[in-house]
Amino acid sequence: MQLGMVGLGRMGANIVRRLMKDGHECVVNDVNQGPIDALVKEGAIGATDYADLASKLEAPRAVWLMVPAGIAGDVVEQVAAVLEAGDIIIDGGNSNYRDDVRRAKTLNEKGIHFMDVGTSGGVFGLERGYCLMVGGHDEAFQRIEPILKTIAPGATDVDRTPGREGDRTPEELGYLHCGPSGAGHFVKMVHNGIEYGMMAALAEGFNILDHADAGITEAAHSAEIAPLEFPEYYQFNIDVPAVAELWRRGSVISSWLLDLTAAALASNPELDHLAGRVSDSGEGRWTVKAAVDTGTPAPVLAAALFERFASRGEDHFANKVLSAMRLQFGGHEELPAGDVLEAGGRKAEHHDTGQSQQS
Amino acid sequence: MQLGMVGLGRMGANIVRRLMKDGHECVVNDVNQGPIDALVKEGAIGATDYADLASKLEAPRAVWLMVPAGIAGDVVEQVAAVLEAGDIIIDGGNSNYRDDVRRAKTLNEKGIHFMDVGTSGGVFGLERGYCLMVGGHDEAFQRIEPILKTIAPGATDVDRTPGREGDRTPEELGYLHCGPSGAGHFVKMVHNGIEYGMMAALAEGFNILDHADAGITEAAHSAEIAPLEFPEYYQFNIDVPAVAELWRRGSVISSWLLDLTAAALASNPELDHLAGRVSDSGEGRWTVKAAVDTGTPAPVLAAALFERFASRGEDHFANKVLSAMRLQFGGHEELPAGDVLEAGGRKAEHHDTGQSQQS
Amino acid sequence: MQLGMVGLGRMGANIVRRLMKDGHECVVNDVNQGPIDALVKEGAIGATDYADLASKLEAPRAVWLMVPAGIAGDVVEQVAAVLEAGDIIIDGGNSNYRDDVRRAKTLNEKGIHFMDVGTSGGVFGLERGYCLMVGGHDEAFQRIEPILKTIAPGATDVDRTPGREGDRTPEELGYLHCGPSGAGHFVKMVHNGIEYGMMAALAEGFNILDHADAGITEAAHSAEIAPLEFPEYYQFNIDVPAVAELWRRGSVISSWLLDLTAAALASNPELDHLAGRVSDSGEGRWTVKAAVDTGTPAPVLAAALFERFASRGEDHFANKVLSAMRLQFGGHEELPAGDVLEAGGRKAEHHDTGQSQQS
Amino acid sequence: MQLGMVGLGRMGANIVRRLMKDGHECVVNDVNQGPIDALVKEGAIGATDYADLASKLEAPRAVWLMVPAGIAGDVVEQVAAVLEAGDIIIDGGNSNYRDDVRRAKTLNEKGIHFMDVGTSGGVFGLERGYCLMVGGHDEAFQRIEPILKTIAPGATDVDRTPGREGDRTPEELGYLHCGPSGAGHFVKMVHNGIEYGMMAALAEGFNILDHADAGITEAAHSAEIAPLEFPEYYQFNIDVPAVAELWRRGSVISSWLLDLTAAALASNPELDHLAGRVSDSGEGRWTVKAAVDTGTPAPVLAAALFERFASRGEDHFANKVLSAMRLQFGGHEELPAGDVLEAGGRKAEHHDTGQSQQS
Repeated sequence: MQLGMVGLGRMGANIVRRLMKDGHECVVNDVNQGPIDALVKEGAIGATDYADLASKLEAPRAVWLMVPAGIAGDVVEQVAAVLEAGDIIIDGGNSNYRDDVRRAKTLNEKGIHFMDVGTSGGVFGLERGYCLMVGGHDEAFQRIEPILKTIAPGATDVDRTPGREGDRTPEELGYLHCGPSGAGHFVKMVHNGIEYGMMAALAEGFNILDHADAGITEAAHSAEIAPLEFPEYYQFNIDVPAVAELWRRGSVISSWLLDLTAAALASNPELDHLAGRVSDSGEGRWTVKAAVDTGTPAPVLAAALFERFASRGEDHFANKVLSAMRLQFGGHEELPAGDVLEAGGRKAEHHDTGQSQQS
Repeated sequence: MQLGMVGLGRMGANIVRRLMKDGHECVVNDVNQGPIDALVKEGAIGATDYADLASKLEAPRAVWLMVPAGIAGDVVEQVAAVLEAGDIIIDGGNSNYRDDVRRAKTLNEKGIHFMDVGTSGGVFGLERGYCLMVGGHDEAFQRIEPILKTIAPGATDVDRTPGREGDRTPEELGYLHCGPSGAGHFVKMVHNGIEYGMMAALAEGFNILDHADAGITEAAHSAEIAPLEFPEYYQFNIDVPAVAELWRRGSVISSWLLDLTAAALASNPELDHLAGRVSDSGEGRWTVKAAVDTGTPAPVLAAALFERFASRGEDHFANKVLSAMRLQFGGHEELPAGDVLEAGGRKAEHHDTGQSQQS
Repeated sequence: MQLGMVGLGRMGANIVRRLMKDGHECVVNDVNQGPIDALVKEGAIGATDYADLASKLEAPRAVWLMVPAGIAGDVVEQVAAVLEAGDIIIDGGNSNYRDDVRRAKTLNEKGIHFMDVGTSGGVFGLERGYCLMVGGHDEAFQRIEPILKTIAPGATDVDRTPGREGDRTPEELGYLHCGPSGAGHFVKMVHNGIEYGMMAALAEGFNILDHADAGITEAAHSAEIAPLEFPEYYQFNIDVPAVAELWRRGSVISSWLLDLTAAALASNPELDHLAGRVSDSGEGRWTVKAAVDTGTPAPVLAAALFERFASRGEDHFANKVLSAMRLQFGGHEELPAGDVLEAGGRKAEHHDTGQSQQS
Repeated sequence: MQLGMVGLGRMGANIVRRLMKDGHECVVNDVNQGPIDALVKEGAIGATDYADLASKLEAPRAVWLMVPAGIAGDVVEQVAAVLEAGDIIIDGGNSNYRDDVRRAKTLNEKGIHFMDVGTSGGVFGLERGYCLMVGGHDEAFQRIEPILKTIAPGATDVDRTPGREGDRTPEELGYLHCGPSGAGHFVKMVHNGIEYGMMAALAEGFNILDHADAGITEAAHSAEIAPLEFPEYYQFNIDVPAVAELWRRGSVISSWLLDLTAAALASNPELDHLAGRVSDSGEGRWTVKAAVDTGTPAPVLAAALFERFASRGEDHFANKVLSAMRLQFGGHEELPAGDVLEAGGRKAEHHDTGQSQQS
């Protein structure tokens, strides 16, 4: 079928490629001309603006938006302005599902369908296909299902779940109609929340492996830092990249995130090209807020999110308050700020012979 | 080569099967006769006791123990008593790596090698192979390497990590010599710690999906429970089993644990055969303690562990203390204990019109 | 000065009493006649409705609302309808500070001042005074300052902070102008977030004391539950109520919340009148959401909140998912739901001799 | 009565002063001569070494050790060597309660009593008295009770708990016999675990207040950092030192730790003399390990401990692993390490217009 695509970043462009390869016709637009030209060379129809895009699609139209969440609202409005009743707008970006609920209501009043499609797959989606979480009306879902089928991974690469028989259901092909407007991005949001938690579990575990030599590296200790209790049990120099590779085979934690970690560690075992300031991009936050709203315990997902904030220094004032309290009640002097990080991220501590620190 | 196997539970027996299939000769023993007989029918050599087992193996021997961690110490001693210098004892169970450090030292004094092999793979290992994390001397490692190669998954089922070229390293075949005695179980311990964290991330996420209908089910609320702020955003009846299936395809969180979750939900969507009292079996605890010992932050792994404790009611006294404080400072009456769980695990709350609760 | 009071629950009524005792004149209203009559007997002027209340106050008026957060919006509107430009509405309840920001804007357009006053003190406020966190315009703040001074604790009962000299500042008298509209309830919200965290710290600690006998009570263990590693170190029967009392004297954690805990434990050492289903009432949730919004790490405050959710059974589906995964990968059977809580909240577990559980 | 004191750091010396003021006779020793001379001037009897100390005390003797936990074991042995059956050694330092269990057993074999006394009070103890948590035999407890009574705060400064009547119990005077050897330090350990949690609750809360201006300071955002959703709700410049002072009066979270925070903020509102590298000194770690051992959920206490580890950079490798994964699956580039902290601990982020980051 025909699809308009607005936003030709890596994901938008790759979705277009996947669609064209399967015989769909794509009319494409972007704020930059370069990505349009590139796809036109590969067989797409270029559009100079939204009106041009609308004119090159036959009604009823379907237009997929693949733009940053921050501007999705504006683009939806502008695209809607050139469409007519019966057309479908699909937001395939990382919008907050709450915005979907509101946008769908507004567009429905004009007779335009709004579909939200949470899209997972990252840079590998062109080859692996994208996992699609879809929200919106049944009728619109059915109309765009041929496109979804093509973008999704399909039946190829995953063992069938025991107990599932007969024809494959949509979820077994990698796309699912999750519910009314917002449901797609809601499910995608929770997906990313889980992703944060799984990533943190792996990162914390590898960090413990990295600390398995604590009994070797441990220096003279200040009274301010608890000494290592059993140095004889922390005498291991673990080959962390090898362990990551190992766990990919037959272990309970084998996963795509582990595959990626193994790849990263294979190319740079110390990861010393990175500063360890971990970004976050919305869904992890929204997941924790949804947990709070609905009274659902989510300590792991929240801890994973907060670790990222702390990695960017946002715990700094809290830490100063803690040191200030210790100084007050026990006369515990903090080490001066000039004592900098040693290699490996561990900090040097001075020896202190004072006998009085106690709380 | 030849291997003695002590402990023919599911994992021990399946390891023997995997070895025999690849041409190794196995002498087997168990506290029960049944499992011995079963494996003898499949080609193993039965041994009536440890002495018999030792006599049926040619020196230098290798004996693999696959027994519960709680009795591993005794079995190691008893088996060591019938072995001689140059022989190898392999603990393939879930022992604490600290015990390995001590046991290796004792056995080394007698000239017996001790190897610790953390073994992951669960009930699927017979087919998939087992992921093997090995600790002990180089020499002993090299001697048992043919056995490890057979038990491990080998080269078959996993894409090669980008950047890895040439001959496959052991970790690419599913086994790794992690370091001196204890290193194998240390790495296995951290593996299970990560496993707890990943499982918790998935469980919390699915629980949020299960609560996505909070705006529909929300009843009149007590002043004691914060009302749902935006019921219009929690109107989704998510098909949780379908989502689990969907995420197996192309998503960032695709993983073996997700595969298993999808399988469990496919066979029982409500999981109503389960009480939700989650057990734990040692490694998760040891991982958190290792994090604490080495000063490594592990909030996600710890939260995952503590959720399990709480699922078994171990938070009960703490919760009573909290309710007692609320009653003291705000006159906040707890609902009587007789108010029981509604279907789905959520609890009914009465309406309270009091205007005075404030803290 | 003169003050109108709407809402005569415990806190509203006690604030009126505190004001009248200090010579202020109060015009009072409530949805019920009883509380009005009671205060009229003590010297207040009763008002039959908001219009009557407005007519009995001289312009420019000041009306304090002490009503549940859920109806505060409606009451603000209704009261504003009978007031005129120059009057002040004070919301002393537990409203979300975001509502204040919006309400202040609306009321300002009519020339009515809106003040938000976070009020802490619970059932002891009549005697101890209330801690007041105030948001709104400077001018309105100055006009109601005489009232705030009376309601606040004043200079009496707390040692002066070292370094503070000269005349006491407002915060040293127990009230503070925290900033523009919303700032008062924002600070109150964070206060309650901290309260949740401090309460949880105490509750978890007392629970550990309660478990100090684990080495005595520990029964035969299932392979499903990690056995207690060092029973010889958990042989204590701690007198928890006595410890709570002890810590009130000279310890670092002495606090009003500890005082309350000691009082609760003194009257019922086992707290067996409580079910341990801990409520929460808004501010704890809003605090975590504010932390998430602003990128501030708050793992302790979030964990404290989530423990409360779990105490009410909201972790149930997550726990079933965890048990389901364990059953899948390791054949780990959960104990049947019929196995009920033993006294003290700990659950009985059956003995299992299986050798095969491993992950 | 007579007491020997070994270790004249601030706490040891102040305990001696408190004892002498109340008429007890103290024989004192330290590794340095200065503290001995100072106390001799105030009326104490100096001892040149342990043998001299023993000779200057009448049997049965009582010797209090106030030395760092790291050397307590050696000092106990050396002092025991000069004592005789019937004498009492008191460890008033911060030893691990497990060491007490072992030391008591060894000393009991020689007929020497061993008492463990957890001592809280910090630098204020001389004036306020020390909170004493005591473990050991009944008989020895009764013999040293006169000393404990003097060191403890006594009956003076705390309101009596409602419901407690008649003669004051020991816990109402600030000391408690908690149980057999180890019980005193066990209770002290949990006290400090709670202290960590309460401190973290306060620190996180003040940090949220410090971030209340996020809507003002928020600059152009990278696609890598979630933008602030509602900047209009984060427009507050909270006077954090004033709020700390305010909450000391009538609020639910009034506490000694809050008093100390207010004092610290009064003397340095930005706390810019501190680097925020928060130390920990054993008990917090032991508390979490005791929680893990006994299966007691303690997510708040553990999170508080882990925040301290992270404040010292021990999360660094974990954070690099997280950034590495993000780079792998989404092409998310981390900002270069050269982007340093802005004032206030928040880090500058560059603007990125890429449309493709999605997971």
